Formats: sequence, structure tokens, C-alpha cells
Amino acid sequence: MTAASATPAADALEARFRRLSAIEGALGVLSWDRLVMMPPGGGDARAEQSATLGVLAHEILTAPEVGDLLEAAAAEPLAGWRAANLREMKRRHAHATALSSALVDAMARASAKSETAWRAARAESSFAGVRGPLGEVLRLTREAASAKAEVLGLEPYAALLDQYEPGGSVARIEGLFAELEAALPPILEAVLERQARAGDPEMPTGPFPVPAQRGLARDIMATLGFDFTHGRLDETLHPFCGGVPDDVRVTTRFSESGFVSGVMGVIHETGHALYERGLPAEWRGLPVGEARGMVLHESQSLLMEMQACRSPEFLAHLSGMARAAFGGDGSAWDPSNLRRIYTHVERGFIRVEADEVTYPLHVILRTRLERALLAGDLAVGDLPGAWNAGMRDLLGVTPPDDTRGCLQDIHWYDGAVGYFPTYTLGALAAAQLFAAATAADPAIVEAIGRGDFTRLLAWLRPNVHGKASSATTDEILTAATGAPLGAGAFLAHLKRRYLDG
Amino acid sequence: MTAASATPAADALEARFRRLSAIEGALGVLSWDRLVMMPPGGGDARAEQSATLGVLAHEILTAPEVGDLLEAAAAEPLAGWRAANLREMKRRHAHATALSSALVDAMARASAKSETAWRAARAESSFAGVRGPLGEVLRLTREAASAKAEVLGLEPYAALLDQYEPGGSVARIEGLFAELEAALPPILEAVLERQARAGDPEMPTGPFPVPAQRGLARDIMATLGFDFTHGRLDETLHPFCGGVPDDVRVTTRFSESGFVSGVMGVIHETGHALYERGLPAEWRGLPVGEARGMVLHESQSLLMEMQACRSPEFLAHLSGMARAAFGGDGSAWDPSNLRRIYTHVERGFIRVEADEVTYPLHVILRTRLERALLAGDLAVGDLPGAWNAGMRDLLGVTPPDDTRGCLQDIHWYDGAVGYFPTYTLGALAAAQLFAAATAADPAIVEAIGRGDFTRLLAWLRPNVHGKASSATTDEILTAATGAPLGAGAFLAHLKRRYLDG
Repeated sequence: MTAASATPAADALEARFRRLSAIEGALGVLSWDRLVMMPPGGGDARAEQSATLGVLAHEILTAPEVGDLLEAAAAEPLAGWRAANLREMKRRHAHATALSSALVDAMARASAKSETAWRAARAESSFAGVRGPLGEVLRLTREAASAKAEVLGLEPYAALLDQYEPGGSVARIEGLFAELEAALPPILEAVLERQARAGDPEMPTGPFPVPAQRGLARDIMATLGFDFTHGRLDETLHPFCGGVPDDVRVTTRFSESGFVSGVMGVIHETGHALYERGLPAEWRGLPVGEARGMVLHESQSLLMEMQACRSPEFLAHLSGMARAAFGGDGSAWDPSNLRRIYTHVERGFIRVEADEVTYPLHVILRTRLERALLAGDLAVGDLPGAWNAGMRDLLGVTPPDDTRGCLQDIHWYDGAVGYFPTYTLGALAAAQLFAAATAADPAIVEAIGRGDFTRLLAWLRPNVHGKASSATTDEILTAATGAPLGAGAFLAHLKRRYLDG
Repeated sequence: MTAASATPAADALEARFRRLSAIEGALGVLSWDRLVMMPPGGGDARAEQSATLGVLAHEILTAPEVGDLLEAAAAEPLAGWRAANLREMKRRHAHATALSSALVDAMARASAKSETAWRAARAESSFAGVRGPLGEVLRLTREAASAKAEVLGLEPYAALLDQYEPGGSVARIEGLFAELEAALPPILEAVLERQARAGDPEMPTGPFPVPAQRGLARDIMATLGFDFTHGRLDETLHPFCGGVPDDVRVTTRFSESGFVSGVMGVIHETGHALYERGLPAEWRGLPVGEARGMVLHESQSLLMEMQACRSPEFLAHLSGMARAAFGGDGSAWDPSNLRRIYTHVERGFIRVEADEVTYPLHVILRTRLERALLAGDLAVGDLPGAWNAGMRDLLGVTPPDDTRGCLQDIHWYDGAVGYFPTYTLGALAAAQLFAAATAADPAIVEAIGRGDFTRLLAWLRPNVHGKASSATTDEILTAATGAPLGAGAFLAHLKRRYLDG
């Protein structure tokens, strides 16, 4: 006979959350299939399947006994990862129970309607058609933010941010963004001057057949450490990384007109995939074993895309791989030219096409606007004007239309407010982590130049991936880099890459 | 305000079964993905996901209130499809509640162990290694059969058969199989003599590149009426038809050595797919809207594969399609030669490779043996000898080893007893339905010869597919053909195709 457990409530909660995790894993596969494999006529049946599993997951998480168990578990002798796991279970339970079913329903419905209106509005470049639906989404988001704020003891915007970046601090974001807003414009100015003097890089000429691009993409993924026995690469209109840690599904898009942006897209998603794959197997199915939040997640994609793979060392290696894949010949394929292509900077309109120097300015604008929209300081109807004024102010350009302005991102129209800051916080974290990794093991960069990412991964696994949700983002960063999240490493990186030498 | 429903119990049950259906649909996608897409390292996570959804589905079906609701619904004013739906809900509930969770668990475990042992035993052609595990599966199957027999008021073998063919009658199977066992050997003898006189057909020579085969397969599927906006074709080792009616997932296997068997495999699975796709949209998610059982399911695959597409008319059409797909030239590609290839008959060892004349003899053997194993009249250790004796008796050949004998089929080793008869009952139903269809609309065959299956489908939709589970198999067959299931049409078909003219 087994001795009675000293932690019966935590045991019961862990079993329940493993069940929840399996349902969420199934939802992940269904979602991947919908985007990658499903024929169009399967949409209604799939929506029914996903909605049913979503309701079951919600019921498991919010059943009355969960609150009692969480209370009982707080008195049990839990230490280490189990204590951290209890904290994460509490957090998930608090988010799930903060909103009434009626509000969750209304938000899902309003977001679906607004997303549809957004697609039409974007196609016609006319904000007017989505103004009403977006207003409704924002009204409900405000209601949800207040409800969560009360439960979590946070201000409303922080309560939304917490959904994507647990423990994320609005004051910290304000400080970091102020620092970036002051530092970036002069850097940008200097980079553009220098770039103008150097003239445009040459573009490699094709053909770039898709099968060759696919082969190159798989080779690069394997080089970075992606394990194809635990994952796949497929093609979709909008690249993403989905699946579960033992079965990571990366997607990308190939354009026959060139390999330049496709390659970096694959590298970006592979960074996400390596994080998921590196989560500790012994915590599978438990909240403590999940990725920490969107800041560290984005740090892992940007560490690969911006820090490691736009380095001169890796671009020299990539030059050889790309030449071999496409039979490329001539100076356009030279490492020095690839370097100019991959570090090209521009005052553009579109966030997702932005370089690493201007990207934070796009994010600062969106964060400013979404906080004003949430607080009611900015009326929905004034969004296009405020957007364009902000672009002039921060980037010095005026979008020619709303499609290239306030209609470019799906986030708000889909009900995601509080997500945008994580892109730039992730970029800062990526620079800080890469600096710490290469300081700890100076041979990492040279190894990357040989296509050997094992040294880099050997540092990331224990310092980032393996921590999963056992500590906060700042605890993980402090342990790994000696300091909480800051802008210093990022700004130093920009100056070194774009202005020195 | 809405008036109170006169059928609150049935309403509640229908909502519950729709939820169950969505979970089962999700399980179908997960299973398809596992066989078609999943990288090998994803197996454990997927097993966890599927097991969790399986438990949830079982809980929904067997919750205590379901029994009460079924009782209450019996007193409600239900007619037409709702009455049929109640009958089906009762049947599913009876099957699910007949077994204790402990027995279901033990069976799942024993089957998994036995299936693994079977794979090894088959590879080594040694029955000894699977004898013990199969004995355990049969012991538990006997226990399950008794439990279900008591609940359903059937004899044990009929209770197992009922899982695959609801309402299937053992006495009917005995009668039909006795008729076939008497009629087939002389037919087989005569066919083989005639075939020997004619000599061997020529085999078309390749190359048969897989992309060309894929294109031909898709063209044939479209010709038969498969709608690619509601389904896909992919490749697996073992072809199957999965998914849900609005998103049917067909798989096949292509061999570079020829197109002959691959084409018929695709046609077979497309027959299954057309049945699923033809189930009435208004009954989606309800038991009444599901396929009637394995007899009608197999009748739809065999109607396409054996009746329609091995007809001289369709083979003439296929000849043109195949020539175009592979640039085929010469008499091997002629309709008359294809006809000889596709109606070749042989006393073989392997059921899945058998022609339509000998196939029922394979099934009769398996049915006889599984009934004896279940009743305890045949000891597991005596299976190889009994198998080989039966093959000599029924087919006049002795398997050279157990791999080509009693180890060839997964069914028993995987816990599926009572399934085998449905293959041959399906073949009989296919012949009976095709005869009725072509009698009702004599232009069907000529249309098929032009690659036009719309007339055939126009008959199958209302007479078979659209009935779903609103009536019994025999009611559907009687309404469609004027008689319950018999062997007459099948035997007449064999004589006409293989001995006349």
C-alpha cells in the first residue's frame, strides 16, 4: 500500500492540469491542420470541434472544486518547481474565472465580426467599415480589462499585458520605451546617412525554385538544431510556429522572386521552435513546464533571426549554403553583399517588414495608441489620424492610406490588446541574452560561422529554455545575464552592427 | 419567450451527442494526422491527447444522467428521424455502459501489447510469440462479449458483431455463408479453367512516376464525384478513409512499379468517402446522421471498386486516362487487356490481395475461426493448424508460413472480433445495390463509360447515403432493392463477369 500523499490537493490539481494540457495540445493540432491542411469546406465542422474542446478546457479550469483545491494546496508542503507550478495554476485560474461566460462569448463573437470587417476594410483601405465593430471589441476589452484588473490587483492595461507576458510591468515598459524613443531617432539618422553613402546592395538573381528553397530551409533549420523527428516544416500564407514541444510545427512561405526574406522567416520561427522543444520534458503537461511568456518567446526567435543569423559570421556561412542551393554566382551572393541586404534600414510604413532599428518605433506607436484607446483617451474614430500623426512624429513618414496605416495589423481587430510591447521587449531580451551567451562562451560566434549552433544551444538550454515557467522573466534574465531586462545591450548592438567599423 | 419544449429529454440528449460527435471528429483529425503527418517523436504526446479526449467522450456518453434522460425521452412524442436518433443513442449508450472501466482499460492494454507482439511475430513468421498475448485478448473479449450479450439480449458473437454492424444477424450470416461456400468453389474452378485457356494478360510497362500517379488518382476521384473542397488525398503505408463528412481524408499508396493496384485502392477509399460525404447535412453531429454500419460502408467502397469501376465500360474510360497520365502505348493499355488484369482470379494466401471470387472464402474461414475461438471450441495454440486446414478446405492451398497464414490480419490481435463478416456482407450488398441502381436507371453504366458518375450518385444519394442511420441495413436494402440482403445478385454478377460471354 502506498503512503497517503502529503500534497493531495496539489496532486489533484496537477492531474487536472495535465488533462487540460492534453486538450490544449489537441487544439494546437486542430489549429495547425486548419491553417495548413484543411480543405475550405471543412471550416464549419472544425469550428464545432475546436469550440467544443475549448468549452471542455474552460470547464476543467473553472470548475468550482479548482478554487477549493488551490486554496488547500497553498497550505501543502510544496517547494521548488511544484511551488512555481502552483503559482502558475493560480494565475491561469484567475484569468479564466475573472470573466463571465457571457463576456467571453460576447468577446469571441465581437472579435470574429470585427476581424471579418477588418479584412474587408483593409482590402478597400477604408477604416470607416471597421470603426463600429472595433469600437464594440474595445468596449468589451475595456470591460474584461477591468474585471481582470480587479482580480489580479493590476491596472487594466497591465491586466491585459499579463495574458501575454505574465508579470509584465507597465512602468518598466514606459521607462524602456522612453529610452528607446530618445535613443533611436539619432541612431536611425546616422545609419541612413551611412547607408546612403554606401549605395544600394545588389540583389541575387534567380531562378529560386520552391523545391530548392524548401531544401535550403530544411538545411538551415537542421543547422540551427531543429529536430525533424520531433517537428515538421510546411507552407502557409502567414508563417507561424505551432504544435507541442515534442511535435513542433513550423510553417513558412516561399516566394519565387527570392530567398532573402523567406530564409529569415524560417530562422525566426525556428527560434520559437527551439524554445518549445527545449522546455523540460519532466514538466510536460504542467503550467510550470510551459514557455514563460511572449517576451522570452520573441527573444528566442529574434536571438536567432537578428542576433545570431544576421551576424557577419553566419551570413558568410549562409552565402555558401544559398549559392549551393540555387547555383548562385557573382558578387551579389558574396557575404559582404548579403550583409548589406540583411542590415538594410528604412523608414517604412509596415511593422512586419521593418528592420531591427525602426521596429521598436512601430511598437512604441502601437503601445501608445492601444493604451489611449483602452483608457478612452482616444476615440476609435480618431485612430487613423492619431496613427498617421504618430508615424510622422516617430518615423518621419506619413502612410499614404489606412491599409499601410492603422489597418495593417490584425491584433486590435481580433481582440488582442496588450500584445504589441512584447515584440520590442523580446528584441531587447534577445540582445541582452546573446551578449551574455557570447561573453560566457566567446567561441559561440565563430562556431555559428561554421554552421555549428550547438555551443549557442548549450547556453540557451539551461539559461532560458530549461527554466520554462519556474521563474519570472526578470528572474530568468537576471540569472542568465546579471541584470533584469534593459535597453543597453540592444542599443549597443545596433551601434556596433550599424555604425561601427 | 419560447414555449417550453415538449421533448426536453431528447433535446438535452441531442445537445450532448452533438458535443460527443465534435470530440469524435477531433479524434478523427488527430488520428489522420498521426498516420499521415506526425513526426515519429510526437507519438507520446499524441497518445496522451487522444486518450484524454477518449476519456472525455466516454464520460459524456456514460454519465449517470444519460440513462435517466434516455428513459424520459422514451415517453416523449418523438417521430421520424428523432425516434430513430433516440434508438441509436440508446444503442451507443448500451454498448458504452455494458463494460466496466476496468474491463475497457484491461482490453486497451492487452490489445496494445498483443498488437506489438503480432508485429514482431509476423516479421519472424512465428505464431509462438503472440500466442500468449492473443490468448489474453480473447479472454477479455469473451468477458466483454458476455457483458454486452446480457445488456443487448444477444448471443455473445452477435453482441460483438453489433459493434460494427448494428442489428447484424448471426443466423443470416450462417445462411448466406453456407450458400457462398456451396456456390463459390465450382465457380472458382470454372473461372480458373477459362482463365488458363486465355493465358496471362500483359502488364503495362512504366515508368510510373509518383507525381503522374497522384494526378491520375485525383482525376479519378474527381470523376467519381469526390469534392476536393471537402476532402484531401494523401499518402500512407496503409490506405484508409478518415476525417468527417464535411472534410473527408482519403489516403493511398503509390508504387513506382505500376498503377494497377494503386488506382483500385483509391477508388475503393473514394467509395467510402462518397458515402460519408453523402450523409445528410441536417443530421450532422447526431447518431442518426452517421453511416449505418460496416456492411453498407463496405458496400459503397466495393460498389465503386468491384461493380462500377471493374466494369468493361469504366475500364475503357480508365484506359484512356491511364494512357494520358503515363504516355502509355501498345496493347497492354487496351481496354480488353486492362479488363483481363482487373478480373484476374487466383487461389491466393492473402485476403487483402484477393479477387472478388475468392475473397468471400477468406472471410468465411476467419468468421468460422473467430466464432470457434470466442466460444472456446478452438484453443489459441491450435489456430495455425486450423487456419491451414481451413485454407486447404476452402481454397485448396496451404500457406507456406504463418505470415501468409494466421498472422496476416491485424484484427484479432488488435481486439477486433466480429468484424470480418462485414467485408463479404458488404460485397453482397454492393452487387445487390448496383443491380437495383442499373435496373432503375439503365443509362448509369453507359454514363460510367464516359466517366460520368452523376447518374449513379443520383441513385445512391437518396437510396443509401441519405438514409444514414434512420433505418436498419435491411430496411435500407429492402427499400432500395426490393429485398433484404441476399447472395443472389453477387453470384449472378460473378457468373456474368467471369463465365458468360
